Amino acid sequence: MPLGSDYDGQDCALARALEVVGERWTLLVLRDCLFGVRRFSDLLAHLDISRAVLAARLADLVDAGLLERHEYRPGRHDYRVTRAGEELWPAVHALMSWGEQHRSEGERRRLFVHVGCDTAIDPSGTCPRCGTRPGPGDLEIRPGPALRHRRDDPVSRALREPHRMLTALPG
Amino acid sequence: MPLGSDYDGQDCALARALEVVGERWTLLVLRDCLFGVRRFSDLLAHLDISRAVLAARLADLVDAGLLERHEYRPGRHDYRVTRAGEELWPAVHALMSWGEQHRSEGERRRLFVHVGCDTAIDPSGTCPRCGTRPGPGDLEIRPGPALRHRRDDPVSRALREPHRMLTALPG
Repeated sequence: MPLGSDYDGQDCALARALEVVGERWTLLVLRDCLFGVRRFSDLLAHLDISRAVLAARLADLVDAGLLERHEYRPGRHDYRVTRAGEELWPAVHALMSWGEQHRSEGERRRLFVHVGCDTAIDPSGTCPRCGTRPGPGDLEIRPGPALRHRRDDPVSRALREPHRMLTALPG
Repeated sequence: MPLGSDYDGQDCALARALEVVGERWTLLVLRDCLFGVRRFSDLLAHLDISRAVLAARLADLVDAGLLERHEYRPGRHDYRVTRAGEELWPAVHALMSWGEQHRSEGERRRLFVHVGCDTAIDPSGTCPRCGTRPGPGDLEIRPGPALRHRRDDPVSRALREPHRMLTALPG
């Protein structure tokens, strides 16, 4: 039973959302999947959590319809973000922007560039050039000026170069 | 030690944000404070959690600079949202919108109305009339068409009427 069921008494859509993504690590797993990470082993190396925790979070995200388990070769599965998962991007990005502003001295480790405009979205998620708020499928993640190369797993290495979100990472 | 310290290995602003607000109940406490709830007893009755959990979450939010403990009468304190706390509104609203869309059959229990335009903001947090994204100080919370009167605490009763966010609730 997910811990979130405690929120039953709260008649609020925020409580409903937190029942799905309020569990520890869940939003970080979803963030990686939005970036394009698909394989269990890559998530494991990038997030540096236990196999059991990762397996539990992935199962919850599949159950909740935010990820799909996809057979990419007979007997081999990976995880792909569904439309409902993609629609959490504004919340993920808003939390990330707040963390950058208030917990990372405004340092930008990652830029999210609206591909059509070749322009980084602003903290509100808006492309300053065209005024739209692009979904993850229209964004490229690029290393920001403050990116540190602290980690050396395959995903961290791949993200030292620009990468189109939702496409397979590492390529 | 907050559970969030586990995210130390994650060089990402999302992890930094979740260290502050990723704990269970924290975002629901902050939501209430953004609505205008200030007193411990009102938060306790509205959230229906234990005194110990509420006290711990409030202390964390004060430590993190999202709430301020304010002496409104000698020896009596309440809690007010700081600017850093207000700046989490886009993330809170984005999660709420997602929950409404994907976990509440699109039912709108609460409307957030841009006061200057007398128009409810859309799921992206934008006022359809003026095109801006109002902060909580410029929003009025109103009962939506799907609001149920399940709870009968002072905050739930007060929210059956329109209420300007950040102003004292119940009045």
